[in-house]
Amino acid sequence: MQEFDPAPLLAVAREEALLGRAEGGVPIGAALFDTHGGLLGRGHNRRVQDGDPSAHAETAAFRAAGRRPHYRDTIMVTTLSPCWYCSGLVRQFGIGHVVIGEATTFHGGHDWLAGLGVGITVLDDPDCTALMTAFIAERPELWFEDIGGEDPAASTSDSH
Amino acid sequence: MQEFDPAPLLAVAREEALLGRAEGGVPIGAALFDTHGGLLGRGHNRRVQDGDPSAHAETAAFRAAGRRPHYRDTIMVTTLSPCWYCSGLVRQFGIGHVVIGEATTFHGGHDWLAGLGVGITVLDDPDCTALMTAFIAERPELWFEDIGGEDPAASTSDSH
Repeated sequence: MQEFDPAPLLAVAREEALLGRAEGGVPIGAALFDTHGGLLGRGHNRRVQDGDPSAHAETAAFRAAGRRPHYRDTIMVTTLSPCWYCSGLVRQFGIGHVVIGEATTFHGGHDWLAGLGVGITVLDDPDCTALMTAFIAERPELWFEDIGGEDPAASTSDSH
Repeated sequence: MQEFDPAPLLAVAREEALLGRAEGGVPIGAALFDTHGGLLGRGHNRRVQDGDPSAHAETAAFRAAGRRPHYRDTIMVTTLSPCWYCSGLVRQFGIGHVVIGEATTFHGGHDWLAGLGVGITVLDDPDCTALMTAFIAERPELWFEDIGGEDPAASTSDSH
C-alpha cells in the first residue's frame, strides 16, 4: 500500500519519544493508526516510569488502542526499528504496515516482517537517530537492559 | 539444561489459567522462574479483565517479574504454546528455557525458538489441553480475537 504520507504519523511517535525522554525514560515512541490516518493509540516506552519491562513503545501504543477484532488495516509507527518482541506483536496480530523512524542505532526484526509480507517503510529520520544516539551514549546500561542485556550488534547477526 | 522438574512449575501456570477462566477471561496462565525453581513473576491473560490486548499470559508474568538486567537463567512456563508475540518476548530478552503445557490446540513460535537455541519442553498436559479445547468451543470469537483474528491453523503454516 503506502499511499499515505508517513511524516505526520512519525511526528506523533516522535512526540511520544520526547515525552519519554522528558520523564527520564527510554526515548522510544510509537502510535497505531488506521489507513486513513486516524489515530487508534499512542504511547512510549515505560520501563523506568512504571518499572515495567514489558512496556516497549509499540506495545504501549497497541495497548492504548484497546481491543480490536483484527489489525489488517492498521499501521504501526515507531521511532526505532522494532525489537523481536515488538516484531512478534506485529506478526501475531497481523498489523499490515510498519513505519520506522530509523534502523541505524538498532536493527530489530523488520526484515523478518518484510519477508512475511508486512509493509515496511524505513524513514532514516535524523532527529530519531540523534535522539537514540545521545541516549545510548548517556545511558548504555539502561539501553542494554531494555533489549535484554545484550549488545544490540550481537542480535542483528541473523534474520530468523 | 532441564535438570529441573517441570511439573510443579506448570502447576503454577495452570493455577493462573484457572484464575483467568474464573474471571471470564482467556484461560491461559504463565510464570517466570529462576533455574532453582524460585518464582519471579506469575500472571494470566487479561484481555477481558483489563480490556488490554497486550496482556497475554507470558507478558503478564514477565511484567510481574519486574526489571532485570538479563534473563539467561530464567524459565518461562506457560499453559499453551507461545504465540509469535510471546515467542518474540522470549527471543528478545534471552529467556533460556520455555516449558509449555500443551501445543495441540495452538502451535505458536516454539519451533522457531528451539532453532535459535532456546530450551523447549512440551509437556502435552491433558488438563491444559482440556481447558483450551473447552474454551475455544465456548468462546471462538474471543479466542480468535486474542490471536489476531485469524484461524490458528492458518498461522502455523510456516516456521519463520
